[in-house]
Amino acid sequence: MALIVQKYGGTSVGTIERIKNVAQRVKKDYEAGNQVVVVVSARSGVTNRLIEDAKTLHSNPDTREMDMLLAVGEQETIALLAIALHSIGVSAVSRTGAQAGIITDDVHTKARIMEISGGDIPQQLADGKVVIVAGFQGWNKKGQITTLGRGGSDLSAIALAAALNADLCQIYTDVDGVYTTDPRIVPEARKIEQISYEEMLELASLGSKVMQSRAVEFASKYGVVFEVRSSLNNNPGTIVKAEVPSMEDVLVRGVAADKSQVKVAVRNIPDQPGTAAKVFQALADANVNVDMIVQNAGRDGKANLTFTVPMDDAYTAEEAIKKKMAEASLPGVEVFTDRIAKVSVVGIGMRSHSGVASQLFTAFAQNGINIQLIATSEIKISVAIDMEKADQAVRVAHQTFNLEQA
Amino acid sequence: MALIVQKYGGTSVGTIERIKNVAQRVKKDYEAGNQVVVVVSARSGVTNRLIEDAKTLHSNPDTREMDMLLAVGEQETIALLAIALHSIGVSAVSRTGAQAGIITDDVHTKARIMEISGGDIPQQLADGKVVIVAGFQGWNKKGQITTLGRGGSDLSAIALAAALNADLCQIYTDVDGVYTTDPRIVPEARKIEQISYEEMLELASLGSKVMQSRAVEFASKYGVVFEVRSSLNNNPGTIVKAEVPSMEDVLVRGVAADKSQVKVAVRNIPDQPGTAAKVFQALADANVNVDMIVQNAGRDGKANLTFTVPMDDAYTAEEAIKKKMAEASLPGVEVFTDRIAKVSVVGIGMRSHSGVASQLFTAFAQNGINIQLIATSEIKISVAIDMEKADQAVRVAHQTFNLEQA
Repeated sequence: MALIVQKYGGTSVGTIERIKNVAQRVKKDYEAGNQVVVVVSARSGVTNRLIEDAKTLHSNPDTREMDMLLAVGEQETIALLAIALHSIGVSAVSRTGAQAGIITDDVHTKARIMEISGGDIPQQLADGKVVIVAGFQGWNKKGQITTLGRGGSDLSAIALAAALNADLCQIYTDVDGVYTTDPRIVPEARKIEQISYEEMLELASLGSKVMQSRAVEFASKYGVVFEVRSSLNNNPGTIVKAEVPSMEDVLVRGVAADKSQVKVAVRNIPDQPGTAAKVFQALADANVNVDMIVQNAGRDGKANLTFTVPMDDAYTAEEAIKKKMAEASLPGVEVFTDRIAKVSVVGIGMRSHSGVASQLFTAFAQNGINIQLIATSEIKISVAIDMEKADQAVRVAHQTFNLEQA
Repeated sequence: MALIVQKYGGTSVGTIERIKNVAQRVKKDYEAGNQVVVVVSARSGVTNRLIEDAKTLHSNPDTREMDMLLAVGEQETIALLAIALHSIGVSAVSRTGAQAGIITDDVHTKARIMEISGGDIPQQLADGKVVIVAGFQGWNKKGQITTLGRGGSDLSAIALAAALNADLCQIYTDVDGVYTTDPRIVPEARKIEQISYEEMLELASLGSKVMQSRAVEFASKYGVVFEVRSSLNNNPGTIVKAEVPSMEDVLVRGVAADKSQVKVAVRNIPDQPGTAAKVFQALADANVNVDMIVQNAGRDGKANLTFTVPMDDAYTAEEAIKKKMAEASLPGVEVFTDRIAKVSVVGIGMRSHSGVASQLFTAFAQNGINIQLIATSEIKISVAIDMEKADQAVRVAHQTFNLEQA
């Protein structure tokens, strides 16, 4: 007998038929003799409808009230899933985040989990019940409902698995697992059997839509082994866990493309101490996250500064820099923006093997893919390239490192 | 400065526009210098949609899970109303039933309020905030969400008014107040300025749709004076309060018609001790409420028993009696059912004035309205009459007691 924590996302519980489907899956694992805790999200569409209602009333609604509002989405799902389980003869009981003892800090709409008591979940499991917990939500020590922000339900599941000392944590989603790259771009993409937290984190932050970084970080911190798998079939998924030595044999685990970035080039900056700092200060003040920074000297004692920002922030970034330069009486500075794609290869094997970068750059050069910016970390190489060449670059990288082969 | 508890029903908060309208009303009272606590229901349609989802999954869903499910309706409304108030510059905060300290017993879907702590409502009011409380819901001592059943939001408002020692409790609805009778039947029907709890209770139980009895009973028990008024205009409503001597000057306060009853006649019952008891035992076992009972001796030592039951229970009642009679080997007993209307006149003045019954019966006789059954209490006379004559009977009664005159 194992204690399993399963998480089903909004799409998996989006309709009454799908809730029934989830109930059947839970039943199967329960009847195999396992103790099962199920974490669910709001049904797809519910959260957006609630946000829309709130935005109709207020352009910037109070975050505490947003938490009060959004928490209803998961509460609806847990009750419906419990009822669905009852209808097929499975004893089950639902718990809100608060009732599951998920205690967070006070930062409404993006609260952090402080501790998890688990409430009466162990007792309910011992009584032979499936326990269904509302993901994405908790409460703070003042008794106020909080929500965990994006990816919050994954986080709830992993945190509960840690708190309950679960044997297995399964994150059910609408994909089969983590792939070497997006199969829509590269049909030969292969499902990864095992991946380290660190690689998963890099892939998550690089545009892989499978999971948000926060949940992976939490799992890494508490050593929760979890499996990402599909709620639509019975295929085994991808196991995410702490790295083991054998993982280093693989040079590159996966390739990711992020097509939502814009390259910002700031030219003709007077080459004086502090001018570049002013640019980044302006961006920080405007809450714009900056990535892939390159600074180089231009002509006539002027410097150029190039970096990428999320597309949604491109306009804000441009305006913030122009305003700052005007304030600093630096009229010659020019700002250019350009859509790019960021293509990254990730693998902990890079830490102990050299030559990945040169292999990648050579392959790109041979295929006429021009590299505009480069950023590297211990286990990742990212390059900014022309938007139009993104898919080609992913295919080239995938092939270069033989990712289609197990 | 007064402390006002206001309750708005599902229709009053049914759309975003209507929530804005409620916010404007609250703002007006708040800016007049009052402390305002607002109790709201689920938006119209929400509860029915949730029930439908649950029924799709299970013909008889678990009551605890139904409470978990249905409580989301009010939670949605409180957050949206708080946001609507913020958008017009009113400081406001929402509280679930549990957060408002509404503690109930364990009877899910029809819980009774045991105590109300009020949570931090007094503190929030002192801080200048409007407090919005989810009606219809509370929690039990085990920390489980409960709901109060039909009319629950009215009950929440009145109970909170009692607990907070409010100066005023206003039940906003889609009618102007309590009328002498249904204005759709009698256009001369007049809004009643003041009515006693007892009269209101009788009218509520006799088919007046304004309020459920439970909330009125609670108000009576704790002496909460409340006003029933419209959320669509600024007309004064009807004040409901403990009776004062001057109220007895009015013989009849109002006339009500209940068209959802069926007359059940059980004939040829052997006139032996305990046989009538068997009939009522059968009905009690089948959870059928019986009203207006008349027993009379028939021919040949047989008795007839006639009573009314709600239309929804008519079939159940008939089957239960037939089964019981068969078990008791009483084959000659016959059961007949017939739709009737129950028309009632109510007034605490009846206690100290005689002649109301004879006035009413005389008026009915003069108008060719045949009385089939009669039931009286200290402040009420009800008669069962032919369904087709219901509206006419209401008009005759209204005119007989001059209810169109203030």
